[in-house]
Amino acid sequence: MANLLCDERDVKFVLYEQLNIEELCESEKYSEFSRETFDMVLDAAVKLAEKEIWPTNADGDQKGVILEQGAVKVPESFHNAYRLYCEGGWSLLAVPPDMGGQGFPSVLNCAAVELFSAANQAFMMYPGLTIGAARLIEKYGTEDQLREYMDRMYSGEWAGTMCLTEPQAGSDVGALRTKAVKNPDGTYKISGGKIFISAGDHDLTENIVHMVLARVEGAPPGTRGISIFIVPKKRVENGELVDNDVICAATEKKLGIHASATCALNFGEKDNCIGYLLGAENEGMRIMFNMMNEARLAVGIQGLAQASAAYMHALRYAKERVQGPEIHALKDPTAPKVPIIYHPDVRRMLMWMKCVTEGIRALIYYAGYCEDRIHAAKSEEEAAKYQGFLDILIPICKSWSSDMGFRVTELAIQVHGGYGYCREYPVEQFMRDSKICSIYEGTNGIQALDLVGRKLAVKQGALFKSIVAETGNLLKNASKNYRLKDIVEPFAQARSQLVEVTRYFGLKSITEDFMIPVLYASPYLELFGDLAVGFMLLWQAVIADRRLEEIYNDAKADTPEKKAEVLRTNRSAAFYRGKVASAQFFSNTFLSLSKGKARAIMSGERSAIDLPEESFALF
Amino acid sequence: MANLLCDERDVKFVLYEQLNIEELCESEKYSEFSRETFDMVLDAAVKLAEKEIWPTNADGDQKGVILEQGAVKVPESFHNAYRLYCEGGWSLLAVPPDMGGQGFPSVLNCAAVELFSAANQAFMMYPGLTIGAARLIEKYGTEDQLREYMDRMYSGEWAGTMCLTEPQAGSDVGALRTKAVKNPDGTYKISGGKIFISAGDHDLTENIVHMVLARVEGAPPGTRGISIFIVPKKRVENGELVDNDVICAATEKKLGIHASATCALNFGEKDNCIGYLLGAENEGMRIMFNMMNEARLAVGIQGLAQASAAYMHALRYAKERVQGPEIHALKDPTAPKVPIIYHPDVRRMLMWMKCVTEGIRALIYYAGYCEDRIHAAKSEEEAAKYQGFLDILIPICKSWSSDMGFRVTELAIQVHGGYGYCREYPVEQFMRDSKICSIYEGTNGIQALDLVGRKLAVKQGALFKSIVAETGNLLKNASKNYRLKDIVEPFAQARSQLVEVTRYFGLKSITEDFMIPVLYASPYLELFGDLAVGFMLLWQAVIADRRLEEIYNDAKADTPEKKAEVLRTNRSAAFYRGKVASAQFFSNTFLSLSKGKARAIMSGERSAIDLPEESFALF
Repeated sequence: MANLLCDERDVKFVLYEQLNIEELCESEKYSEFSRETFDMVLDAAVKLAEKEIWPTNADGDQKGVILEQGAVKVPESFHNAYRLYCEGGWSLLAVPPDMGGQGFPSVLNCAAVELFSAANQAFMMYPGLTIGAARLIEKYGTEDQLREYMDRMYSGEWAGTMCLTEPQAGSDVGALRTKAVKNPDGTYKISGGKIFISAGDHDLTENIVHMVLARVEGAPPGTRGISIFIVPKKRVENGELVDNDVICAATEKKLGIHASATCALNFGEKDNCIGYLLGAENEGMRIMFNMMNEARLAVGIQGLAQASAAYMHALRYAKERVQGPEIHALKDPTAPKVPIIYHPDVRRMLMWMKCVTEGIRALIYYAGYCEDRIHAAKSEEEAAKYQGFLDILIPICKSWSSDMGFRVTELAIQVHGGYGYCREYPVEQFMRDSKICSIYEGTNGIQALDLVGRKLAVKQGALFKSIVAETGNLLKNASKNYRLKDIVEPFAQARSQLVEVTRYFGLKSITEDFMIPVLYASPYLELFGDLAVGFMLLWQAVIADRRLEEIYNDAKADTPEKKAEVLRTNRSAAFYRGKVASAQFFSNTFLSLSKGKARAIMSGERSAIDLPEESFALF
Repeated sequence: MANLLCDERDVKFVLYEQLNIEELCESEKYSEFSRETFDMVLDAAVKLAEKEIWPTNADGDQKGVILEQGAVKVPESFHNAYRLYCEGGWSLLAVPPDMGGQGFPSVLNCAAVELFSAANQAFMMYPGLTIGAARLIEKYGTEDQLREYMDRMYSGEWAGTMCLTEPQAGSDVGALRTKAVKNPDGTYKISGGKIFISAGDHDLTENIVHMVLARVEGAPPGTRGISIFIVPKKRVENGELVDNDVICAATEKKLGIHASATCALNFGEKDNCIGYLLGAENEGMRIMFNMMNEARLAVGIQGLAQASAAYMHALRYAKERVQGPEIHALKDPTAPKVPIIYHPDVRRMLMWMKCVTEGIRALIYYAGYCEDRIHAAKSEEEAAKYQGFLDILIPICKSWSSDMGFRVTELAIQVHGGYGYCREYPVEQFMRDSKICSIYEGTNGIQALDLVGRKLAVKQGALFKSIVAETGNLLKNASKNYRLKDIVEPFAQARSQLVEVTRYFGLKSITEDFMIPVLYASPYLELFGDLAVGFMLLWQAVIADRRLEEIYNDAKADTPEKKAEVLRTNRSAAFYRGKVASAQFFSNTFLSLSKGKARAIMSGERSAIDLPEESFALF
């Protein structure tokens, strides 16, 4: 049985044929790697994902977590998977060698995490949150903190969390009330309650290191007065682990990711909770923001992963499920029945899932690749360029991936028909698990405001201009290929539309109409995402078309019949043909709407905000 | 606390101001009714829905159904709600008086069923399936069958089901294998297995009457050889109810509607299952098709109902949940925090939910109203006209309502943020329950084929032409109002686009390109639905704008300031303003895309079907 979590051929296409990540090995930073080592990592990741993590997915969904006397138990099956994950050193994959890591490129880590998340998103919350917390300590911790916490966290011996949200402080982080009072020895007494803390408590590790946002007594209100603390569940005293007064008061019953413990944590109920300042006082938001890109990309990967697994499962089902005859024989009751992949509407759904999944994958890996190019850059200019790409693409990676990834999981249910609605099949779980991605790590509405209010404004729109210029190069390259002529034109048009809307926003933002960019931030992000993902697919089509022609030439396939024969018998040819089709289909399905979407935004229609609150419905 | 299941003001607006259903009372058939009796029905429905059915919703979701020794138990709380439902005679609401019913218009029944489904979709499956089965008997049963089954079913004493699906026969009903062998006494011996039978077994009634599609020995293959049988769970012998060899072998664990028993039923395992033919042999599909409109409209109502409840809950949450300051004070940590309805992106989501929910409601009620106009018609011509509207709108009512209703439930989660993902709030259940609507009663893909392959073809497109002409009248009327000028234009354009695409389909269907209409059937249904729902909202806007002007005039509000004051203080004014805004917002959000959607269809892009199967992914 082949891997049903992701299309490995497509993963390798993005890594080696589109992004050409072997080139990274030419830089000193990645000089010890090669395609062979990359492939070894991928193979090992597939094996772990398929054989060890995937079998825990339905189990975790059914059992969920159990809270008993303030302590959370994860499903039994998670323990073995976690042990193997740690033994494989997967948390260390992209950690720099001087921090004890393996130093692989981030883009490869994206591919591995996609696989693991596709295998079990809830499971991956535990190592995922740990690495996020460890990275903060890596970047801002003292030598002592690195030694005490980071090493143990990267190895998986201890776990970690991020504690931001409070009941009154969700999207409005600045409203948080958790308090820190400085002790004479330089530590702080922490008190307050946090909610929605993923992996907030569990029995996978002997200790959990919470990164807690809190306000030092007397600090300014809002985000400017927030500090960040290392607050371990158990603190070390005289070489012993002692209880640090962190209590799990409740776990949430949720739509999905049942086996991810979403905890309400109380700090300092017995006035005995010690926190250790990370960085300086009141620097909490700045420090946290540094990790934002990584955290949001991680959520984008989850959206991708659920879409990927959903697509693969729907595809297998469509190839195996026999129902009805081909459409032209609909009225002949004796006509042979065919697998549903032969029904055009099913094809249409599969094609939608295929191009969206592949497009998201390319976009997300590209973001990971940008990180690597920053690290491997030969000049500050080059690093700044990729940092700019990364910064402007992150909200798209997070939002478009989670919104459209969710649609892919929804379509997977639809392809399965009535069976898709039954828990016996895994697709409904994919949809439930996927839904959280549009909410946490900053709702998609917050992402849109980040894109429009912050990223577009950077250096008078320099990030935007830079990425638009980059797509110009791609368009120029693509338009040289006469076979892609019909595909290229809609891309060029859609690109102009995005530029036009962006200018419109620029004008509006300096007038009394500044509410328009705010009101249309989400539709703008959608339009931007259509383009970003579309260009990834166009980029792939240019490469795939060239490869396909090479195969045709090698096979001396110079007639439609011979080409069809090649497609039937040569799997590489079929794959490349599929890549070109993804760009075609995406263009026709998404970019055909760009003009309308742009017009809708630029209409400036503002009924939603002009309406009195009373107009919405009478209570 | 006001009703959080649906906006009663909007319900009454559709019934009395848009459809003007009081006029129905002028026909003899509805002459005994009046607005007062209609209002009494609505009030009673709200009360039952809110006070008795809604409290069973979360309970049913948590407990689900229990299968023990071949018998299904529904949650305890359902028994009382079911008793009250039956005592209220709700199943009889729109049943003709000569069949023992109350004879109210169908459109009123739509409103009542919307409320009940919003209160608990799973619960409503039991009376809903019963009425569907009873209606079949009403129309095709013998006098004896009417007396024995129909009366008891309408009263709720016995329940009913529809048994179509078998493991190998889902969308392809003609592939069914359940067998009927004629007995000397004219009854039939039934044997075979059915799956996905909603309300297939339960303990709400002493007996369940299954309407079973089966093939009489020797009948032709495919749909032409299908007959329909009344197969009671217990048959009457010598005045006693005896077991009729119908076994519930399993119930499905599902994504949603947990408390609706989705059963696998085995008929005749002990060779002792008797069926009674309904109508003639081999007429099963024709008979069943007669009930199709009603059954599909019922699913459309479910899609509407979940959307409605989701919108109302999201709206309340948005008005109560305080988070962050208004956008212009974002950087001032001391600025007062506001309810999230003041945040533009939340407004945008609410507006989306509002206009879609209101649009679906109007469309669905309109379909119910068409039924009533058929019954009240003064001429065959008039009846045929409304039958035509109904026939062509039904696939839209079912599909667009379920697809977009689902999006409304999804957005309700998004408005709730992290809380929306928690089972503590009801919105995630709305989404889970809603998802089934795009699948059962013919998947939405099947609906699209019905629209394109069957309904468009009727009398050389007469149905289509007739409904397009009707919208022409509306456009003419609307364009007389200069205040709606900007709104009307996009409607006219979108309408032209639909006509153009329909012509294109007509041409393609008679050429070798007949696969294009098949491939694009679902996108076509979407485009058609956008228009159908849009026109409902435009129709409403014309009325609402007139009423609003009347209110302004009465209040002598002749300046923007005075008008704003009226909107703040006069709830009717605020409501009408909201109706105009729904049309505006819908036009800008949906109809702005019509041209692009039309172009995409007419591109004839066919990569999805041209691609070899191997291109989808390598297994």
